[in-house]
Amino acid sequence: MIELPKGYRFSGVSAGIKTRAGAKDVSLIFSDKPCVAAGVYTTNQIVAAPVVLSRSRTPCDTMRGVVINSGNANACTGSRGQQDADEMTRLAANACGEATQSEQFLVMSTGVIGRFLPMEKIRSGIAAAAQSLGPSESAFLDSVDGIMTTDAGRKIASRNFQIPGGDYRLLGMCKGAGMIGPKMATMLAIVVTDAPLDPVDAQRALQAAANRSFNCISVEGHMSTNDSLVLLAARPSPATPALQGSDLCNFGGELTQLCIELAKKIPDDGEGATHLIEIHVRGANTDADADAIARSIALSNLVKTAITGGDPNWGRIVSAAGYAGVPIQPPRTALKLNQIPLFDRGEPLPFDAKQVSSSIRASKLTVIELDVGLGPGNATHWTTDLNTEYVRFNSEYTT
Amino acid sequence: MIELPKGYRFSGVSAGIKTRAGAKDVSLIFSDKPCVAAGVYTTNQIVAAPVVLSRSRTPCDTMRGVVINSGNANACTGSRGQQDADEMTRLAANACGEATQSEQFLVMSTGVIGRFLPMEKIRSGIAAAAQSLGPSESAFLDSVDGIMTTDAGRKIASRNFQIPGGDYRLLGMCKGAGMIGPKMATMLAIVVTDAPLDPVDAQRALQAAANRSFNCISVEGHMSTNDSLVLLAARPSPATPALQGSDLCNFGGELTQLCIELAKKIPDDGEGATHLIEIHVRGANTDADADAIARSIALSNLVKTAITGGDPNWGRIVSAAGYAGVPIQPPRTALKLNQIPLFDRGEPLPFDAKQVSSSIRASKLTVIELDVGLGPGNATHWTTDLNTEYVRFNSEYTT
Repeated sequence: MIELPKGYRFSGVSAGIKTRAGAKDVSLIFSDKPCVAAGVYTTNQIVAAPVVLSRSRTPCDTMRGVVINSGNANACTGSRGQQDADEMTRLAANACGEATQSEQFLVMSTGVIGRFLPMEKIRSGIAAAAQSLGPSESAFLDSVDGIMTTDAGRKIASRNFQIPGGDYRLLGMCKGAGMIGPKMATMLAIVVTDAPLDPVDAQRALQAAANRSFNCISVEGHMSTNDSLVLLAARPSPATPALQGSDLCNFGGELTQLCIELAKKIPDDGEGATHLIEIHVRGANTDADADAIARSIALSNLVKTAITGGDPNWGRIVSAAGYAGVPIQPPRTALKLNQIPLFDRGEPLPFDAKQVSSSIRASKLTVIELDVGLGPGNATHWTTDLNTEYVRFNSEYTT
Repeated sequence: MIELPKGYRFSGVSAGIKTRAGAKDVSLIFSDKPCVAAGVYTTNQIVAAPVVLSRSRTPCDTMRGVVINSGNANACTGSRGQQDADEMTRLAANACGEATQSEQFLVMSTGVIGRFLPMEKIRSGIAAAAQSLGPSESAFLDSVDGIMTTDAGRKIASRNFQIPGGDYRLLGMCKGAGMIGPKMATMLAIVVTDAPLDPVDAQRALQAAANRSFNCISVEGHMSTNDSLVLLAARPSPATPALQGSDLCNFGGELTQLCIELAKKIPDDGEGATHLIEIHVRGANTDADADAIARSIALSNLVKTAITGGDPNWGRIVSAAGYAGVPIQPPRTALKLNQIPLFDRGEPLPFDAKQVSSSIRASKLTVIELDVGLGPGNATHWTTDLNTEYVRFNSEYTT
């Protein structure tokens, strides 16, 4: 049983955008009152129309909701795509009534790149979604279904936390299993809370949470044109003061934990994946250096295929760290795989290859720990292995 | 029939380092007189012992030869690995006689990472290789066989060219099909010429050629610990002056063409590859920007799997360009796939998907042309597609 934050209604309907009959593909998230909104978006320079629009509207404290379609990314669609994204928010505002304005909606799209949105279907879908808005768990789950594409299942997370002065709730959903294209998923995530926040604080907390969660995951490393993470924060009453100081820090910690929980679900559901690979890098000069090293390991097809095969081929991991573009010195570097030491201070260690191989095969989770022995910087990334299913899925489809 | 540059002898023998019985795994290239040597090496910070040693010995004008083993990369092997690399050059100098010194040899290794070299086998292999040195085509082909690992066939190229004052020859070999690890190949390339060169000019010409050839290819983008490209230039006689001015420019052009011809053979033989993908980027602000965009496209698994499947999924190409980290503006960008326009100035173009798909399926070579419309910068990269054979090859092996 999911406890919904107070003040929100949800819906998800089938508008016929996805080819599979009856699949939900239009979702609405609506706040009963104007709320704070923050957003973190793709840094790709080829950016989808809905991202351009939503980015221009966050952070703010007058937001009413988010309208989302799946099955079409509205990316690489030029000025017509921009008009269509704008029209989606106008349709949502009109359908939700209460004198809401189009500027009070964010918009997200996910699916095939380079095709214009089917606006007739979008129009009737948004109307139907507005009519079925509700504050129930089933309505929330409908809205989750409406943002999914190649996802094997729903990706949701929730947290309740107490701060002197109140009990608050965080509820999040995300989608994504591969990056882009026909039948592909781009990453979208929406988190709603009833904690009282100032817009600038909300934006800072969301960026910090993203840096430790959604910015630390990969499936194949192809950056999408549509990635969007938004936070809505509906203040319980106009009189409730916004969180500050240590309360705001606590909220930030809760938000980061929730985002990590959500974000890990994406590589865990990576297309074809049989392993979730968790990469801890310690001892870098800075957190940014550790992040670069973890990313380099996470994006190596040779590291990923070694894990697929249960192969304790640690040279692939160490060499991927070596080309991350940040300082690393072999004589200070140590590597463990599933807690078994393999390489220490520039020298290979004797190890039982069968034991390491068994430990990889025995668990969905593989843990890589690399200590580069230079400083206090650390980072954790999550990725998938790479197997023939991923390749088949992404190559055996023809437009 | 290969025309050998004057002044060199070659050999390749089986020393039992590779597991397959009789496979050649120790090669020698020997210059009759001290010659000019230049080298370009991996920029990975995790660098194999032979690279450390060879890098310290180029450029110079006193080199006598190169000793190479395959089947073991002598990487991540600490101080013992460094001693072993040094010992290989000492063994080569002793075995080749003529009072050559160990410092007059370069050394290369390729194969599994993290294991110590079997020095007894290396010792007898080098002795046997020195005894079978010859200036014949068959001896040259033996030396090519001795550097191969997962390569499907020999990768060689030769050019003859005239410069006022002489006829000269360039002859090159390289190896590589995947990047590192057990049963994996790391990139090695050796080019020999009888053109007279100064060491500094040789080094500059080689770096320039590498930048347009070996630095523009990828299979999966995992940078090896062992990549080495060396050029030997044996002056016909002490009296022959080194090439200068336009003659040196002409030599540089010939060397670049030879290196491109050699380099393309690596992704063309990429593990499991069914397509060679040639990526032309034009209109970037600088050549370096064009290089970054071409590299980003070449390294995208989603681009690679689309080509595998004959899928005209151009959004994957454009979006990969968008996250290369250099300026690109959709309204100025245009894309062609096998000469068919798909995207122009930010808008999708109508096209016949079946026609594009057929053009991909009909040819081993797929050509991507991206014009970003900003400036004079251009670059060309070559990569493979990504198919289930690559994944199977790299995952279904266990140490």
